[in-house]
Amino acid sequence: MHHSPDSELALGIDLGGTKVLTALVDPDGAVVESYRHPTGSGGGFEAVLARIVESVESCLAAAGDPTIVAAGVGVAGQVSADDGSVYFAPNLGWRDAALGTGLAEALGMPVAVLNDVRAATWGEWRYGAGREADDIVVVFVGTGIGGGVVSGGRLLEGCTNAAAELGHLTIVAEGRPCRCPNLGCFEAYAGGWGIAERAQAAVAGDPDAGRRLKELAGGDPLTAAHVTAAFRDGDPLGTQLFDDTARYLGAGLTAIVNAFNPCTLVVGGGVVERSPEYLERASATVMARSLGIATRELAVVDAALGADGGVIGAADYARTLARGKEAKR
Amino acid sequence: MHHSPDSELALGIDLGGTKVLTALVDPDGAVVESYRHPTGSGGGFEAVLARIVESVESCLAAAGDPTIVAAGVGVAGQVSADDGSVYFAPNLGWRDAALGTGLAEALGMPVAVLNDVRAATWGEWRYGAGREADDIVVVFVGTGIGGGVVSGGRLLEGCTNAAAELGHLTIVAEGRPCRCPNLGCFEAYAGGWGIAERAQAAVAGDPDAGRRLKELAGGDPLTAAHVTAAFRDGDPLGTQLFDDTARYLGAGLTAIVNAFNPCTLVVGGGVVERSPEYLERASATVMARSLGIATRELAVVDAALGADGGVIGAADYARTLARGKEAKR
Repeated sequence: MHHSPDSELALGIDLGGTKVLTALVDPDGAVVESYRHPTGSGGGFEAVLARIVESVESCLAAAGDPTIVAAGVGVAGQVSADDGSVYFAPNLGWRDAALGTGLAEALGMPVAVLNDVRAATWGEWRYGAGREADDIVVVFVGTGIGGGVVSGGRLLEGCTNAAAELGHLTIVAEGRPCRCPNLGCFEAYAGGWGIAERAQAAVAGDPDAGRRLKELAGGDPLTAAHVTAAFRDGDPLGTQLFDDTARYLGAGLTAIVNAFNPCTLVVGGGVVERSPEYLERASATVMARSLGIATRELAVVDAALGADGGVIGAADYARTLARGKEAKR
Repeated sequence: MHHSPDSELALGIDLGGTKVLTALVDPDGAVVESYRHPTGSGGGFEAVLARIVESVESCLAAAGDPTIVAAGVGVAGQVSADDGSVYFAPNLGWRDAALGTGLAEALGMPVAVLNDVRAATWGEWRYGAGREADDIVVVFVGTGIGGGVVSGGRLLEGCTNAAAELGHLTIVAEGRPCRCPNLGCFEAYAGGWGIAERAQAAVAGDPDAGRRLKELAGGDPLTAAHVTAAFRDGDPLGTQLFDDTARYLGAGLTAIVNAFNPCTLVVGGGVVERSPEYLERASATVMARSLGIATRELAVVDAALGADGGVIGAADYARTLARGKEAKR
C-alpha cells in the first residue's frame, strides 16, 4: 500500500439529530482519526454549524492539522444536489437550511452534502461490500429503511435528488399507515418501528399470547429486539412476528432486485445486524422469487463498514467531487 | 424543420411473437415508411431472421432504397447488452439466440437490439411524453406491466441488462401468484391478465353478483375490458373490481415514484388507453401518497407515441449508438 500524501485526506461528517461524527479518511477508505460530539440541534442551524466546525477543528488538531482536500457531510434529510442545501431534516428541525454554502465558508474548503444513507451507500460501493460492482443496491434496515443505488457506476439521484427511497416502496397495497403519506410501505412492516408497531398491535389483540413479549419488554414499549428475543426463546407469538418480518423483508428485497437489477445487494442496519436470521431467510426468498435474469449474477451480502460507512462515504464523495472540479480547471 | 439527409434515417423493428413491424424513422422521430409482416416464429430462429430481412427490404424498397445509418430491434425478451443476443424470449420460443450479430450480417449495417418495452421507453424519452426530462419512468400497462427508466439522462440497464422490471415489484406481500416466480407482483393485480384473473375469481366466488360480467363476456373468458364495461354500466361487482384495480395501480405507481424519483412518469399501454379513468385515479393517489420531495416536480402523463413508440425508439437508439461509435473512431 503506497503512502498517501496529506492532500488526499478528506473529512467525513455524519450529521444526525443527536450526534455529529467527524472523521479524517485516507484514500484507502481508512479512518485516520475520528471525533464524536453532540449535535445540539435544539440551538438551531447556526449553533449546529458551530458545533460541526468545533468537531472538525478537534478532529484535525488531534491528527496534527493535516491538509484536507474536501469535506463531505451526510445528513439525515433531503438535500439539494445543486448547492448542498437541506430541504427538510426533521431530526434537526431544519427546512431549507444552507448547510453546504455555510459550512464551505466556515471551513474554508470545498464541502459536499448528501443524504446520510446515500453517503453510507457510497462508502459501501467504494470501500465496502459493493466494491467489486458497478451496479449495487444498498439497503439499511434500522428504525426505518433507507438505501441507495449505484447503476452503471453512477449514484442514482433522480429528479429532486430523492431517488431510492427504498423504505417507501409499497409492499402491501392499502396496508399499514407509514410515517410518510403512503400506506403499506416496506419500512412500515420490516423497519424497526414497523416491527415494533406490529408487535404492539399483536400483543394488544391477544394479551395472553403476548405474555412472553410483555415480560421481555418489562413495562417499556415493545421493540424489534424484543421480537427477536421472544423468537429465540421459542415463544409462539414472537416466532410468528419474526417469521412475518422475514417474509416482508423478502418481499421488499425481491421488489428491489426486480426494480434495479443489482450485481450486489448489500444489506445492513441495526435490525439485520442484531438478527442475522432475517437476512438468511430474506436472501433465500430473493433468490427464489426474483426474475431469473435478475439473480443470474446477484450476490446478497452484509454491509461491511458498519457505523463508519457514513463518514467514509461522505469523505470519499467529497474528495471525488473536488478532484472532478480540479480536473475541469 | 430542416431537411434530413438520407444518412440520418434509421430502421426500427418491433419484433413480437406474431408480427414484425418495420419502420423507417427520420431524425425528428417521424415514421417515413412502415411495414407489417407475420413473424413466423413457428419456423425457428433462421426463419424469423429471414422474415425480418424481407420486411426490411420491403420497407426500404417502398421508400426508394434510401441510405440507412443503423437498425434497432425491440424484442419481447431479455437481451444481452454486450452483443444483442437474446437470452430468453418466450413468445418467440428463443433461448440464447444471436439476433444482433445474425441481423447485422444479413442486413450489412450496424444493428442494436434491446428489450421492446425499453425501446418504447427510449422513444417516449426522445420524442414522446418524456422528452423534456432527464429523469423519466415509463410504465406500460398492457396484458402484463413493463417499463423503463431514464435516470440522469441514461437508460437504466442494471447488472444483466434487466433493470426496471416494473411489473414485478411486489405490491402485496405473499399475494397472488405471478407468472414469474414471485407472489403479489404489480402486474398480477393491475396488468390485463391480473385484472382478468381477479375478475374470474370474483365471479366464480359469487356467480350471482357476476351475472352482468358473464353477460358481457358472452361465454368467452372474462377480460379487463369486460371489467371496464361492467363498471361503466354501474354493475356493483364490476365497480368493485375497477375500484380495486385503480387502487393497485396507485399503489404500484407510488412505489415506482418513491424508487426512481422521476420528473415525468409516463403511463401507456392498452389497459390505461381503453380506460382512462384508471390513470386519473392512480395519478391522484401518486400525488397524494408519494413522498413530498418526490412529487415536487413530478408530472404524470399519458404516453404519446402509441403503438409506434417501439419502432421509433429502437431506430433512434440504434442511430444514437452508431453515432457514438463513429465519434470514437
